[in-house]
Amino acid sequence: MILINDQFIKRNQDTHIDIEDRGYQFGDGIYEVVRVYQGKTFRLDDHLDRFERSAKEIFMELPFSKTETKLKITQLIEMNNLQDGIVYFQVTRGVAPRTHAFPQNAKPVLTAYTKKSPRPIDQFKNGIKVVTVEDIRWLRCDIKSLNLLGNVLAKQYAHEHQAEEAIQIRDNTVTEGSSSNFYIVENGKIYTHPADHFILRGITRIVVEEIANKLGIPFIEKLFSVKDVYRADEAFISSTTAEITPVIQVNDKVIGNGPGPIVRAIQEEFQKLI
Amino acid sequence: MILINDQFIKRNQDTHIDIEDRGYQFGDGIYEVVRVYQGKTFRLDDHLDRFERSAKEIFMELPFSKTETKLKITQLIEMNNLQDGIVYFQVTRGVAPRTHAFPQNAKPVLTAYTKKSPRPIDQFKNGIKVVTVEDIRWLRCDIKSLNLLGNVLAKQYAHEHQAEEAIQIRDNTVTEGSSSNFYIVENGKIYTHPADHFILRGITRIVVEEIANKLGIPFIEKLFSVKDVYRADEAFISSTTAEITPVIQVNDKVIGNGPGPIVRAIQEEFQKLI
Repeated sequence: MILINDQFIKRNQDTHIDIEDRGYQFGDGIYEVVRVYQGKTFRLDDHLDRFERSAKEIFMELPFSKTETKLKITQLIEMNNLQDGIVYFQVTRGVAPRTHAFPQNAKPVLTAYTKKSPRPIDQFKNGIKVVTVEDIRWLRCDIKSLNLLGNVLAKQYAHEHQAEEAIQIRDNTVTEGSSSNFYIVENGKIYTHPADHFILRGITRIVVEEIANKLGIPFIEKLFSVKDVYRADEAFISSTTAEITPVIQVNDKVIGNGPGPIVRAIQEEFQKLI
Repeated sequence: MILINDQFIKRNQDTHIDIEDRGYQFGDGIYEVVRVYQGKTFRLDDHLDRFERSAKEIFMELPFSKTETKLKITQLIEMNNLQDGIVYFQVTRGVAPRTHAFPQNAKPVLTAYTKKSPRPIDQFKNGIKVVTVEDIRWLRCDIKSLNLLGNVLAKQYAHEHQAEEAIQIRDNTVTEGSSSNFYIVENGKIYTHPADHFILRGITRIVVEEIANKLGIPFIEKLFSVKDVYRADEAFISSTTAEITPVIQVNDKVIGNGPGPIVRAIQEEFQKLI
């Protein structure tokens, strides 16, 4: 079952979205991906808060209140008897004759579906290789919008270079992965890009900060370069699906000696939380 | 009638595009808008060439050859008996389970439709007011992609400021309008942003250059600032639907004395061509 607006309907290829939906023509919409563990959502409230913020930043009304959306999402998960996987939901500005400016009378369109997906346990254990690419995205990466072509091209570049993730560089500064936040560890401190307009403030990033605070590990928002990454003791990424994944190689440079003690400590606490 | 892949079908709300079409989730696709005058397309070949280039730049295969696409577009126009209006067509990377990297087995999805639309004759005659906004778009504006949220927000800003178009500024340099190219005239010469990665190389821009060459008006690709615009003798925009539209005011600054002789000369030649 999938959810379209307030209706639960059967998933059926080729039969749902209008060709003049603004999501389809402009990427004019926002989305969230929420992890489900053993039938329960993880940090759904945080995702819904960010969803509301994204909508506000693009001046788009949401079709439902936070409480209503939460109820529908939870119903969908139960209906599909999802145990381990994700729930994806998005809202676009709706269907209207194509013109760039906001339409007067369009109603926003909500779509949501669930998907089983195993946790990438091997990657948590062994870490991943990443490559760096130029960050060519727009200047409002803090909005979780459907304009993802830059992210798509970066991720594809990574896969073509035998890497799991692409770490993006803007003006000699490391911003974030194509679908994750990025961190380095030096002298027992965690460094990551400030949560400004150049990165998405990941929900898992919030959790990493909470865990770091709990463990007494300094969590420092600071600009750093690829050279700093090469010199780091440890590196890792975080996202809803990648959770906390160690990074053991950046381009041709091996980082530290495999996954280090800080990332292991964060992973351990994260495991307790879920 | 609309065209979806190789099928001509009736336009029918809510019944066409899959929720996991990559166009809907990532804006992972490209498009063109072609003007139709008295039942005939204007510069369709140029649009199709750019379409192929956009596809290549995002490493996307097109479902049909240029000749096939041309035939289908022409058939659609005839089928709908469109006299004056536009034909819109786009191709997305297709339907696949959501993941950022390119899907292995997705087939690209073509959609096309026509729309009657009158030429904005009043604006050609009287000119328009524009406002400036920061250019927050990605760094590959040369690709005519479906990632248009930056353009959407800019155009909306213009409309909320009683202006017809938003002229975008990046690093103190005027790039282009939210859906048009932008030009200034000084001492009988036309200046516009170079056709690099920061602007779309408009088909009408190509025509403007051809006309300028024909009339012996220097057409100069050069970076310029808002201050240069304020000092200009004339200003204008061009696009498939705006054709050649004089700009008579930029923010609070009146440009020249209404539409000037150069823009009128370009308009006159453009009228002959169509």
